[in-house]
Amino acid sequence: MSAFSSSKPVVDDRPREFCGLFGVYGIPEAGSMIYQGLFSLQHRGQEGAGIAVADGETVSSAKGQGLVSEVFAGKDWSTLPGHLGVGHVRYSTTGSTRIQNVQPLVVECVDGIWAVAHNGNLVNAERLRLMYQEAGAIFQTSTDSEVLVHLLADPMFRKRPRRVARALAELEGSFCFLLMTRNCLMAARDPHGFRPLSIGKLGDAYIVASETCALDQVGATFLRDVEPGELIIIDETGMHSSMYAEVKDESDHARCIFEMVYFARPDSRVFGENVHLARVAYGKRLAEEYPVEADIVISVPDSGNSAALGYSIGSGIPLEHGFIRNHYIGRTFIMPQQDDRSAGVDMKLAVLPEAVRGKRVVVVDDSIVRGTTARRRVMRLRDAGAKEVHVRISCPPIRNPCFYGIDFPTSDELVAGGMEVEQIRDYIGADTLGYLSLEGLFAPFGEKCGFCDACFTGKYPTDITGISGKHALEKESELDLEL
Amino acid sequence: MSAFSSSKPVVDDRPREFCGLFGVYGIPEAGSMIYQGLFSLQHRGQEGAGIAVADGETVSSAKGQGLVSEVFAGKDWSTLPGHLGVGHVRYSTTGSTRIQNVQPLVVECVDGIWAVAHNGNLVNAERLRLMYQEAGAIFQTSTDSEVLVHLLADPMFRKRPRRVARALAELEGSFCFLLMTRNCLMAARDPHGFRPLSIGKLGDAYIVASETCALDQVGATFLRDVEPGELIIIDETGMHSSMYAEVKDESDHARCIFEMVYFARPDSRVFGENVHLARVAYGKRLAEEYPVEADIVISVPDSGNSAALGYSIGSGIPLEHGFIRNHYIGRTFIMPQQDDRSAGVDMKLAVLPEAVRGKRVVVVDDSIVRGTTARRRVMRLRDAGAKEVHVRISCPPIRNPCFYGIDFPTSDELVAGGMEVEQIRDYIGADTLGYLSLEGLFAPFGEKCGFCDACFTGKYPTDITGISGKHALEKESELDLEL
Amino acid sequence: MSAFSSSKPVVDDRPREFCGLFGVYGIPEAGSMIYQGLFSLQHRGQEGAGIAVADGETVSSAKGQGLVSEVFAGKDWSTLPGHLGVGHVRYSTTGSTRIQNVQPLVVECVDGIWAVAHNGNLVNAERLRLMYQEAGAIFQTSTDSEVLVHLLADPMFRKRPRRVARALAELEGSFCFLLMTRNCLMAARDPHGFRPLSIGKLGDAYIVASETCALDQVGATFLRDVEPGELIIIDETGMHSSMYAEVKDESDHARCIFEMVYFARPDSRVFGENVHLARVAYGKRLAEEYPVEADIVISVPDSGNSAALGYSIGSGIPLEHGFIRNHYIGRTFIMPQQDDRSAGVDMKLAVLPEAVRGKRVVVVDDSIVRGTTARRRVMRLRDAGAKEVHVRISCPPIRNPCFYGIDFPTSDELVAGGMEVEQIRDYIGADTLGYLSLEGLFAPFGEKCGFCDACFTGKYPTDITGISGKHALEKESELDLEL
Amino acid sequence: MSAFSSSKPVVDDRPREFCGLFGVYGIPEAGSMIYQGLFSLQHRGQEGAGIAVADGETVSSAKGQGLVSEVFAGKDWSTLPGHLGVGHVRYSTTGSTRIQNVQPLVVECVDGIWAVAHNGNLVNAERLRLMYQEAGAIFQTSTDSEVLVHLLADPMFRKRPRRVARALAELEGSFCFLLMTRNCLMAARDPHGFRPLSIGKLGDAYIVASETCALDQVGATFLRDVEPGELIIIDETGMHSSMYAEVKDESDHARCIFEMVYFARPDSRVFGENVHLARVAYGKRLAEEYPVEADIVISVPDSGNSAALGYSIGSGIPLEHGFIRNHYIGRTFIMPQQDDRSAGVDMKLAVLPEAVRGKRVVVVDDSIVRGTTARRRVMRLRDAGAKEVHVRISCPPIRNPCFYGIDFPTSDELVAGGMEVEQIRDYIGADTLGYLSLEGLFAPFGEKCGFCDACFTGKYPTDITGISGKHALEKESELDLEL
Repeated sequence: MSAFSSSKPVVDDRPREFCGLFGVYGIPEAGSMIYQGLFSLQHRGQEGAGIAVADGETVSSAKGQGLVSEVFAGKDWSTLPGHLGVGHVRYSTTGSTRIQNVQPLVVECVDGIWAVAHNGNLVNAERLRLMYQEAGAIFQTSTDSEVLVHLLADPMFRKRPRRVARALAELEGSFCFLLMTRNCLMAARDPHGFRPLSIGKLGDAYIVASETCALDQVGATFLRDVEPGELIIIDETGMHSSMYAEVKDESDHARCIFEMVYFARPDSRVFGENVHLARVAYGKRLAEEYPVEADIVISVPDSGNSAALGYSIGSGIPLEHGFIRNHYIGRTFIMPQQDDRSAGVDMKLAVLPEAVRGKRVVVVDDSIVRGTTARRRVMRLRDAGAKEVHVRISCPPIRNPCFYGIDFPTSDELVAGGMEVEQIRDYIGADTLGYLSLEGLFAPFGEKCGFCDACFTGKYPTDITGISGKHALEKESELDLEL
Repeated sequence: MSAFSSSKPVVDDRPREFCGLFGVYGIPEAGSMIYQGLFSLQHRGQEGAGIAVADGETVSSAKGQGLVSEVFAGKDWSTLPGHLGVGHVRYSTTGSTRIQNVQPLVVECVDGIWAVAHNGNLVNAERLRLMYQEAGAIFQTSTDSEVLVHLLADPMFRKRPRRVARALAELEGSFCFLLMTRNCLMAARDPHGFRPLSIGKLGDAYIVASETCALDQVGATFLRDVEPGELIIIDETGMHSSMYAEVKDESDHARCIFEMVYFARPDSRVFGENVHLARVAYGKRLAEEYPVEADIVISVPDSGNSAALGYSIGSGIPLEHGFIRNHYIGRTFIMPQQDDRSAGVDMKLAVLPEAVRGKRVVVVDDSIVRGTTARRRVMRLRDAGAKEVHVRISCPPIRNPCFYGIDFPTSDELVAGGMEVEQIRDYIGADTLGYLSLEGLFAPFGEKCGFCDACFTGKYPTDITGISGKHALEKESELDLEL
Repeated sequence: MSAFSSSKPVVDDRPREFCGLFGVYGIPEAGSMIYQGLFSLQHRGQEGAGIAVADGETVSSAKGQGLVSEVFAGKDWSTLPGHLGVGHVRYSTTGSTRIQNVQPLVVECVDGIWAVAHNGNLVNAERLRLMYQEAGAIFQTSTDSEVLVHLLADPMFRKRPRRVARALAELEGSFCFLLMTRNCLMAARDPHGFRPLSIGKLGDAYIVASETCALDQVGATFLRDVEPGELIIIDETGMHSSMYAEVKDESDHARCIFEMVYFARPDSRVFGENVHLARVAYGKRLAEEYPVEADIVISVPDSGNSAALGYSIGSGIPLEHGFIRNHYIGRTFIMPQQDDRSAGVDMKLAVLPEAVRGKRVVVVDDSIVRGTTARRRVMRLRDAGAKEVHVRISCPPIRNPCFYGIDFPTSDELVAGGMEVEQIRDYIGADTLGYLSLEGLFAPFGEKCGFCDACFTGKYPTDITGISGKHALEKESELDLEL
Repeated sequence: MSAFSSSKPVVDDRPREFCGLFGVYGIPEAGSMIYQGLFSLQHRGQEGAGIAVADGETVSSAKGQGLVSEVFAGKDWSTLPGHLGVGHVRYSTTGSTRIQNVQPLVVECVDGIWAVAHNGNLVNAERLRLMYQEAGAIFQTSTDSEVLVHLLADPMFRKRPRRVARALAELEGSFCFLLMTRNCLMAARDPHGFRPLSIGKLGDAYIVASETCALDQVGATFLRDVEPGELIIIDETGMHSSMYAEVKDESDHARCIFEMVYFARPDSRVFGENVHLARVAYGKRLAEEYPVEADIVISVPDSGNSAALGYSIGSGIPLEHGFIRNHYIGRTFIMPQQDDRSAGVDMKLAVLPEAVRGKRVVVVDDSIVRGTTARRRVMRLRDAGAKEVHVRISCPPIRNPCFYGIDFPTSDELVAGGMEVEQIRDYIGADTLGYLSLEGLFAPFGEKCGFCDACFTGKYPTDITGISGKHALEKESELDLEL
């Protein structure tokens, strides 16, 4: 789900893409379980959270801005009655945001209420939005997700068989959708399978979640992933599957490899592989590809933990804890004004000087985006007495923007957008710098195909002609009004 | 503006009808002035408040639940920049309400942003909503007001001249609308003129408000009322008027006489007459129609104040203060549980026993709805020692529901729905009971035509066939979904 | 209760004096009834509210800033269990205030918990505070009320008979106190009887309240006033009375006549007389003392309502409503910045031009303090077309500060501190100005003695030597610390 | 600082002991720096936070419940002006708590304002409180910390030289105090030196903090620890030291070894040693003392991280990540009701099955208290497929309560209070269980003396006669009142 682009006057938040979805069918107190599930998916979005449930007759919903635990603090679950429901967490932004954009969207069409939760980024949303607006539709959010409800409500789709399937088939880009009517839960994944979506079973009940860690949290058993191009419908007659889009073979898939690199929780199983083990493998491979003489391996916690472990195993260099993470940075933290004294002070990670002093240090992190943070941390390790600082990154250089849901900056702002590795090394002040190779990235899967690696390679799995850049999506939409 | 009826699953608040509108064009800090204006119209709605402003380029808005002073507490007006804008206050309910329903609605159509604020009740909203839903539209609020934006966005209207006029012409029922685009303010009143809407001038700026007391508040001069069937457009070229509906003559008007009886503030000028003076005249007339030997005249404050004064003048019986009003009942007041001791205790009005003891008392109030409050107050006056209690009501018996925006209960619940005056007198326990005659009601206007008196007479100015009762508007809208 | 003076560094609010007290003994759910009672006393203080209750074993309390309805919004009364309790409302200030100062104070001494609520102003609090501080006491609030708990805890008082009585006897100034231990409710009034305090009965239970309107609110019957110099103790053995101070005769009393003029609610019985009737008598007397040829009498609502009625009766000039009060000004209201347009605009009272245009108007108000508000309102009546404006005030000119609990400004700021009546008339722009005579003020009581009229006469009932002015009470208390 | 025991009716929170202190002298915007410092000490207390500052004339303070970032969200630091100040974080409890108990306490004595912040537990607080109460003192909090201000205000101490020193000398138990007057900062540590307190330097300014990680956070340089029995006074003339208590030699010290085991942050230097390195040494020693054949070593994050690393190094068994921590459990998290399905589900730590399946696992944690959590986690590792589970604890069995500030339960509730190691192993279901030896615990210091290890050994460094258990401190304090 992303803030939509063409509605500049309405938009008051930057596009933020990652989100988490959790849906259930067949649990007596669906709301409370969705709360637990969203809590496990909180790392996918901290900006807002919402839950919509249904009991076969009535649809009830609640949502708000902030963490799951904040939005539902003191919630009386009896006000959200139902045995089916969908929940959503939205990626955090620092700025203000509109409550209207928090999902699930709950709308009324001719045939009743629909609740919609979306994870991803629809590249043809702008075109569809404009098309529907030209046909008379009005939009009340600045999210791209709103176009799906217009498709669903469109008589062209509504009146023919396989309505939801046909509506979904109109969408381009990356998406996982959870849809709910008063008595039916649906789950769909785009034909490229950019984002993960998994199905679990708990007794007779079904659970659908963005990551398997949420299935584990509620005690459900992993059944299988929703397939790219598949539409799952769960109602009182059970779970039904159909393909709403033709997917020739797995090479058509474009599963986001960055989920594996950074976004997913280590205890999740994503695209068939455990995230932690894959990252350990990345670290081992890095040790092969970029060996170095050093005294200790340290991680940038928590995102570098698994790969640092792998690097230590692969290289035989002992692991150390070089950074201590302050867990109490919340959304309300006021960053004190930086003056000469505090410049370079980091409120989130503290260096552990006793661990690094006089040492040759290998620092392992998952990725480098702008390079400013990496640069500051190298500097602070040196200030703490590190003799050498060797940076190892468990993915290739990120050189291209993402149009499928990850909030990378433009190529201009990406440090690898304009620099070669040696220049980056120089910029961040490391003694050596090693990025995992593309081959290494795909090695855990035993194959290279079926993934989207456009941020590294620039090879986009869909036509991005006309999307010359994320910011190009934003335009002035206000036309002259004929009154 | 009223909660819409056909969307039962979404509706979570009872329909409440009265609202207040305030719009400005040409004031550098429009937001701050709208705040002042809404504050003067707070008696028309305490449930929620919202403001949308524009600076020619960007539309900004803020809204929330509660009083104007609460919603905008600590507001930094620089976040609502603009020289034009619209504001809305919404009638208070005791139950919970959806933030989505708070107006102005701000939506995006193909030609840009529209902000819409509505006061009234659209009797064909259900039909239009269904019609648009059948054509594929989705609705995100449970208000009837949302249909107008669908009309405005409809290519059928959008693509031909006089678009807003034609959209308005589709609506039936009672409405005043304020519409805003990024550079234009519009005001419209339904062809029957049910609700008041006045235009003021402040230097070169224009103000439009539900009541003239809001014009006075901001120092504006009353220019004229928006006429029934008139559409006012104010932009950088000035104010333009056109009639979007043909109104044969004033006898087609159906101005709500209950605005005069109860709703408008005494210092407002409504339908050409000052409210206070009209109510004083009602009291004088009541003294003629229902004279009585008594010692004092007391008012039920504040709604009965003007009429009580009139009754005192007309009858020569001296005024007294028999009730003291507690001004501190707010929305958060918790009514303590009533047990035997406190049964009949009234948190809002306290009787002043010293004033009424041993006296023959005339109590003047504006109206009787269910009769339970009147009954309790008569009882308490007797408990305080009143020798006789004579009730005088400054309007005729309310026998019929209102379909144009006033939240009367059904005829079954209206005490005058099933009882004659003598029975009502007996029920409330008064010694005598007098209701103002219909003639008296219209006397201040010197004419009887051009008003809606359906709540008293049952003669509805529009076709209400098919609207067999307010509650009939509510139906189950959830159809079977073909997936 | 007032903010204490000697602790400048702690003090962060201006002294505000009036407060309301409500205590109960013998009601199963004391907390909920205190809530109701405080609600009736809300006019005596809107800054903060607190309740402490006891069930014979445990003392529980809750307090906060704002209105009673706000502080206890959503309160679960089961968290305040008890059959006895005390409550307090504190006068509103515009600035910030310390939660520590909100009463009841709940402290622990050697013999257990005491809850203390105070209304008034202790003129020797500064001396006592210093004395106890010199003996080692620490103070945690900036209120004068805190000294009583130090007296109560003082072994000198604690160890001899009639402890509370002896502690109270040390206090000078104006006070009503409610004291609560875990099983006993006490009420005391200073020997001069400055502030009112009344006892009511409800079945076997006792109620003590600042005004009788609170007794009426909870359905209790007025029993009698607490006498000046009396200490009432209510426990499981019933109500016991004793005099802790010798009061020779009623001429020693110094009941605050300004309670009658302005502060008390019209339906209360204060010092033996109904407030409304006394104010009506003031208005009648004013009509005798300052007759005028005029067309209408109007009140400054609500404080002038009763006297305006009296003036109308006395003069035969008909009453009118000339001002409309906006009831929605709350504590959070943001006064918009005044520019040329809005200068003189009044957010609280709107003039009703139709009522005053072309008329000779008598305006009745309770008092004039600084004169700026009176001046503005006269001006606005003239702007609205009043032909003549005659101001009548239902008390004599206020020329002196109050040391017993009313927050008048210094003589310099009091308009009558430096001007004679004719000068004041000229300043406020009235055609004529009449102040009630001292004789008229006491006429309803049939006597002149037993009241404090120092604000009018400068004859203070206690020695005020050394209290050269309220602001003189404030001094720098920080001494050099020997470490 | 701990909730005081004798005031049962006031106490509404359980005693919680650990807290964090941060004081500054000589920083222009002291408030903002204290905020940063407290943020680094947040792990020492999440219940509440407060800051008091002084500018030489005025003392200003702010405090509230919750995290530092929550309490000071949106804080305008200009409202806390000053170049010196003290801050405090208070340990989190799940229940409600009284705002009065949040520190710093700010009180007024005869010689001015004192702000007091305390970390520790005063074992003679009850006796002192009673003694002062008998002399007439009143207490307004339920913390033991309040007795110090009574000592400071006591003329016996106030009037003789070295006042603060003599007051401190009266206290028994564990304490670090920060005291502030309007122009002076003081820091004191009890003669046993139970809790850490360090001094840093930043230019000409001085910083005092519970842990050195807070000095690092603000860019200060570690100067030295406050010595046991030392009183530091910092004012415009610089820093002055004196010993207020005679400390024969280091063997009199009783530094809390549990700070090293669990409480302090790994990047802090406590009692002269870096915490992380000491914990790594514990892990290595554990590997020597309790070797085992296993496949992986995992940590219970984050408290076991350093020791697990040490165990891996010492044993040569590779480290793995077996648990994933959810960082989003906040104070407002609602634990869903546990039913059969979710019993045993852990919202905070998720097992990573792929990492442990089929493995012989060594789990390293810092300590076992009740044993229920350890038992559940062993069970979940087995459910996830671990072949063997070997538990290693980096301290000896905790068998005795702490009277110096750590919130262990009673011996009855401590799993090692009544069981031998083999029984505990059986209870928690581990294959083997090893606790670090006492020798191992002190090994990093190269000495065994100068520490308190009473929780392990039962050898209390102070007389605890009469303190038969923590709960014995609580008694009914309400005496009969003689009125």
